Amino acid sequence: MADLNIPKTNAERILILGGGFAGLNLAKALKNKGKQVVMLDKHNYHTFQPLLYQVATAGLEPDSIAYPIRNIFKDYPNFYFRMAKAERIESEKNILHTNIGPISYDKLIIATGSETNYFGMKEVEQKSMPMKTVPEALNLRSLILQNFEAASLTVDLKERERLMNFVIVGGGPTGTELAGAFAELKSHVLPNDYPDLDFRRMSIHLVEMADKVLPPMSKFSSAHALSYLEKLGVQVWLNTAVKGYDGKTVSTNKSELPASTLIWAAGVKGNVIEGLKEKEDFDKGRYIVNEFNQIGQHQNVFALGDVAGMSTKEFPTGHPMLAQVAIQQGQNLAKNIIRSDKGRSYRPFKYKDLGSMATVGRNKAVVELYNKIMLKGFPGWAVWMLVHLISLVGFRNRLVVLLNWFVNYFSYDRKIRLIIRPFENPFMKKSE
Amino acid sequence: MADLNIPKTNAERILILGGGFAGLNLAKALKNKGKQVVMLDKHNYHTFQPLLYQVATAGLEPDSIAYPIRNIFKDYPNFYFRMAKAERIESEKNILHTNIGPISYDKLIIATGSETNYFGMKEVEQKSMPMKTVPEALNLRSLILQNFEAASLTVDLKERERLMNFVIVGGGPTGTELAGAFAELKSHVLPNDYPDLDFRRMSIHLVEMADKVLPPMSKFSSAHALSYLEKLGVQVWLNTAVKGYDGKTVSTNKSELPASTLIWAAGVKGNVIEGLKEKEDFDKGRYIVNEFNQIGQHQNVFALGDVAGMSTKEFPTGHPMLAQVAIQQGQNLAKNIIRSDKGRSYRPFKYKDLGSMATVGRNKAVVELYNKIMLKGFPGWAVWMLVHLISLVGFRNRLVVLLNWFVNYFSYDRKIRLIIRPFENPFMKKSE
Repeated sequence: MADLNIPKTNAERILILGGGFAGLNLAKALKNKGKQVVMLDKHNYHTFQPLLYQVATAGLEPDSIAYPIRNIFKDYPNFYFRMAKAERIESEKNILHTNIGPISYDKLIIATGSETNYFGMKEVEQKSMPMKTVPEALNLRSLILQNFEAASLTVDLKERERLMNFVIVGGGPTGTELAGAFAELKSHVLPNDYPDLDFRRMSIHLVEMADKVLPPMSKFSSAHALSYLEKLGVQVWLNTAVKGYDGKTVSTNKSELPASTLIWAAGVKGNVIEGLKEKEDFDKGRYIVNEFNQIGQHQNVFALGDVAGMSTKEFPTGHPMLAQVAIQQGQNLAKNIIRSDKGRSYRPFKYKDLGSMATVGRNKAVVELYNKIMLKGFPGWAVWMLVHLISLVGFRNRLVVLLNWFVNYFSYDRKIRLIIRPFENPFMKKSE
Repeated sequence: MADLNIPKTNAERILILGGGFAGLNLAKALKNKGKQVVMLDKHNYHTFQPLLYQVATAGLEPDSIAYPIRNIFKDYPNFYFRMAKAERIESEKNILHTNIGPISYDKLIIATGSETNYFGMKEVEQKSMPMKTVPEALNLRSLILQNFEAASLTVDLKERERLMNFVIVGGGPTGTELAGAFAELKSHVLPNDYPDLDFRRMSIHLVEMADKVLPPMSKFSSAHALSYLEKLGVQVWLNTAVKGYDGKTVSTNKSELPASTLIWAAGVKGNVIEGLKEKEDFDKGRYIVNEFNQIGQHQNVFALGDVAGMSTKEFPTGHPMLAQVAIQQGQNLAKNIIRSDKGRSYRPFKYKDLGSMATVGRNKAVVELYNKIMLKGFPGWAVWMLVHLISLVGFRNRLVVLLNWFVNYFSYDRKIRLIIRPFENPFMKKSE
């Protein structure tokens, strides 16, 4: 089947891999610009990753943070979506090979994001839980609840404690927000469900290699986030590195933490695709790109967002892997493509830091806007919610999320404690 | 582990299998009556089955029609839930064996509901889609969307048509409501997503053995439902029986229907458990019970709802398998248990028919209340929605469903078109 059944027209074909923040913003900005835009993604939906942790902790339905890609582009002429997995780039021929066949391109944009990075620790990879996709978040939700069902059944107190302990590795926004959500499950939600368990035995550990949580944020934010976490009862281990995990005990350079569940939020690496031969294209799992997001010598192959390693004076080891970088790079590339059609030259990418934020719990968040305004407590929390609501794709999704947040706030509850598909890790031994 | 880690007290232990309508209503009515109530279910949530078809057709999130059982009973003293699958009853010893161990009981109540009945057609069972549980509804949702993704890729017009055809077997409420929902997907939703497909080629077939749809309802309702279905473009095959299905073509006694998807809503059978030896306990897959829901000679073993075959003058072949029967039998048994504690005798079950209803599409429903009031069109549709909203478990669920219905109604859309876990049938050959 030629070109995934997409007609070849005179219009330049822009092939975008990935419907994340970068790909979405690039494609949107190319509407009615005389291009044929083809987007591939292995999922048929865009995932709003910043709220995945609330799916994992039973606060939001998965369906309200995901949005069908075809629906986003339903009014876009000459736009094609295919659910496919990219397999290999044949850049000499301008062809991409996918699991459903080859497709040719005029420009190829790799916006495949990142995947969990275990830094080569095989055992940790097999036995810990990642949380980068909707199915992974649902697996984690199931596992948390399955652990408590199992804890209700065991008479071995050590085993019960292990089932009730959760170790989160990585004190960035994901790990910090997740740890806070676990703490709220512990204090408000789970004790109602499991009256026969003693919740003083449940521990939530947050392990971070640096000397503070939220390392890229200011001292102000890190210090407040740490104090929020401690108030909520999270045990924070700074300057601590995980050495191994056998499925029962997490070994660190400081101590051993017994826990049936290890959640790995300690690092990501670019989700690169086979086929680009230049070795210098790869740096810590990202494509090295120039200031126009071009990869190496390939004039018509670009990388955006997490998978692009653009080194500048300000960011010598590449831009941070953040939604804002991906969005802005997508928009900049669209502008450049349009400029070049008009005979103008590409403009280099310039990152505008709008700020960063993290929420730890109800009325507890830290927010930095434009590197000037610092917020914490309730005002920070309100801004955090507002920004996330606005950024969500889809009117229905915003309404449903808002409604859930209202109900959760006033009921102190998380209603979506459903084990719809039980999680089974083929590497984990079942404890009977 | 003794008794699934549940303490043995002086209180009589009522062991309820199944958190469906019957089990839920029985357990609720036994609150503070001096009993130890133990409920087992293979899921940790109650499923509101009447709205499953909207989950399958991308209209509702699965999480809003399911509700965690532990949460329902959080304020019930001496209530215990265990996520477990019943395996075998040892009635001589008053013990139930489960996948997580044995448990003893004083009274055992089997309220395990029903499962899809293929009437011995193995090939149909392997190659068709059931829709009795939340995971099954999600599988169907994924498969529908996967079919259209595949149809976009194929150049073989016959294959494409097959992928766009859906055969629903069974013209009861489930089949009728599902066919209507498919018709709305066809007319309002899918053409936006797949502009390169010709939707005149999509067919929805509803196959029913009887000479009318909604067989147990009145002529008035059946005739109107049929006319609604035909208006929406559903091809209704009455007096038609399915003979076989090879995954590509449905053979009936009338004709052959090419379709990659066959949805089986043509029958259910009681979900009985191994171990009760009396053969007369089984009739078409249900336990034969007396007017007190007792099974055979077992004074302390009861069956409720779908799995109970209670034959009366009015219902010589057993009561219909309806939510209302299950609810009322659960309530009646609770009353009888309380009566017997006070030395009074059991009262026979008497079914109060509150009516029945089915919705075919927007502003199109048929409703019969108390066998007196007949509604159709918009009034019927409004009553249908109201009754289903009230019957849902949980305030949050009601709000979210109401919100989704509003959005769906005014946008003519179904937003939850997500393939979160692709469906793979091990028996089906993948079409490349």
